[in-house]
Amino acid sequence: MNHSRLNVILEKLEQRGLKQMLISDPASIFYLTGRYIDPGERLLALYVSQAGDHKIFINNLFTVPEDLGVEKVRFADTDDFMGLLSACIHPGEALGVDKIFPARFLLPLMERCGASSYQVSSICVDEARACKDMEERERMRAASAINDKAMAQFRTLVREGMTEQELADQMLAVYKSLGADGFSFKPLVGFGPNAAIGHHEPDHTRLKAGDCVLMDVGCLKDSYCADMTRTFFFKKVPSEKHREIYEIVRRANEAAEAILKPGIPLCEIDMAARKVIEDAGYGPNFTHRLGHFIGLEVHDYGDVSSANTTLTQPGNIFSIEPGIYVDGEVGVRIEDLVMITEDGCEVLNHYPKVLDIIE
Amino acid sequence: MNHSRLNVILEKLEQRGLKQMLISDPASIFYLTGRYIDPGERLLALYVSQAGDHKIFINNLFTVPEDLGVEKVRFADTDDFMGLLSACIHPGEALGVDKIFPARFLLPLMERCGASSYQVSSICVDEARACKDMEERERMRAASAINDKAMAQFRTLVREGMTEQELADQMLAVYKSLGADGFSFKPLVGFGPNAAIGHHEPDHTRLKAGDCVLMDVGCLKDSYCADMTRTFFFKKVPSEKHREIYEIVRRANEAAEAILKPGIPLCEIDMAARKVIEDAGYGPNFTHRLGHFIGLEVHDYGDVSSANTTLTQPGNIFSIEPGIYVDGEVGVRIEDLVMITEDGCEVLNHYPKVLDIIE
Repeated sequence: MNHSRLNVILEKLEQRGLKQMLISDPASIFYLTGRYIDPGERLLALYVSQAGDHKIFINNLFTVPEDLGVEKVRFADTDDFMGLLSACIHPGEALGVDKIFPARFLLPLMERCGASSYQVSSICVDEARACKDMEERERMRAASAINDKAMAQFRTLVREGMTEQELADQMLAVYKSLGADGFSFKPLVGFGPNAAIGHHEPDHTRLKAGDCVLMDVGCLKDSYCADMTRTFFFKKVPSEKHREIYEIVRRANEAAEAILKPGIPLCEIDMAARKVIEDAGYGPNFTHRLGHFIGLEVHDYGDVSSANTTLTQPGNIFSIEPGIYVDGEVGVRIEDLVMITEDGCEVLNHYPKVLDIIE
Repeated sequence: MNHSRLNVILEKLEQRGLKQMLISDPASIFYLTGRYIDPGERLLALYVSQAGDHKIFINNLFTVPEDLGVEKVRFADTDDFMGLLSACIHPGEALGVDKIFPARFLLPLMERCGASSYQVSSICVDEARACKDMEERERMRAASAINDKAMAQFRTLVREGMTEQELADQMLAVYKSLGADGFSFKPLVGFGPNAAIGHHEPDHTRLKAGDCVLMDVGCLKDSYCADMTRTFFFKKVPSEKHREIYEIVRRANEAAEAILKPGIPLCEIDMAARKVIEDAGYGPNFTHRLGHFIGLEVHDYGDVSSANTTLTQPGNIFSIEPGIYVDGEVGVRIEDLVMITEDGCEVLNHYPKVLDIIE
């Protein structure tokens, strides 16, 4: 158990008047114990309490020989594991639960354990995870360094007439060859008008001259996620408007990155990028928030949006990903991961952002 | 909306005294609407009721131009979507929810909507999904046919000194070349003693003569899952004991498949395989249930275990996967998917099961 991380969480629970919590998010359990278990449909829960009687509930199906620094409660599918879980909860006190804790465990627990009330208290874990410690920062740097190298290779794979799917299918091997453990998310590849569609998955659309080539890609390295977007043009930039759109997005990206430091509201970062796009007349074409936090999960808790007045803190790592999307025509997005440091910031991606025409 | 599927679900809800249910499992929503949406952290819910005022709640982030045959309620991240959801629920009546419905939606819903009680009622959907209709059976056949062909190719990739990870890394391309859409689950590859470890993920262990080679693999085709295991030996079978273990597992697999038909308890199928292994003295080394149901998800609801007295029904599709695991030595598992038909059964996998030594 990583006690310095746990203590941050316990303190945040205390501030909310909570003496106990059930953590069930596998990423959060990894964050605290160093062990990743994907429980599938089975119960996996780490009980933490101010009293210090922490316990982790793990199905026998998962081989966990190592000492996790916390009492292990093992059980079989046929055991009354909800009884074991209910029994460890201090009755008469509120219980915090994870936001992902599913109804199949929560409703039976509410019937059987004597907690006085139930609150979603993931925020306490999420806020801790939002401020990466030194070990995590190093891993995030390493993942993004691989992503930079991978983007350079992806660019060389682009060929006239290939499909988005064919390009996406080659990416895993590139990541693996560069030492990544896999994808942090399924690559998004969009050619031409497809790049303007939100959450477009690679399909059988073929690449032709004048198309933009949007690649929103990331790898996983030592359990931490990378995430970067670059938009190229193939053979030519079809019009002055396309070139202008690209340059506006690039300036928006750079405007946001220029103001990064600890202690500023996240909404101001969103605004720095959004203003560039709005001033150029494309405000309605930037249809999403500027960025999201990232770490053990590609979407960690926390966003960089016009509504988020939370102040940046050292160790925050998030994406800066402005975009302009013109239906049926073109989509351009340029995304880096950035890290707030004690006295400024560090941009984790170094792949160039100048307009690049693939021949 | 597939009304014949929906009617089965509504009837099962009625039998449990439920007039309304919130379905949130993306696979179940696909089952009913034909549209797969992965909502990530966002709300996706299909409300169904005996009164017929069905509605589907979809975040604006997901482009869904097509008619789903049900009223769409669209919302943005900044809208009060929990209010919209609460408002559609008939007050004073019990509400069924999906087993996976997460605390972040369930607890606020319980505070705001006037349902008289809450029940996990996924079973009504799961039981419907457990009896595949003709369209689904055809898709399951197609997925397993690809898996058979893929296993033949995986066998040819096996080389002395390669790592489990290197073998696993080549599998996606094989599946794609055969027309699959991807993996149904991450391939499990175990060499030698690693094959005896439950849920062992491919690592950097290198293959040597005398190792067993366990491949538990599956592809996804048109949203349906394949899943098959074969265990080979490399260069030689190291001892008579290893050969005996293989033959016991094969006989166990065949004994279970020999009795398949509609109307028999699932536990009898488990017992048919288990008895072969127990009689041979390896009972304690067969450490798991015989099989699991499968369809849109690799682990659909339903298992083939000693505890399940449910009777088989036409359209049930599940795995038959006996195994013998000897710690530090060897693991053998032989798995097919099988389908209960109106008058018997159909084994969906045809890849040979005779002991096969890869040279």
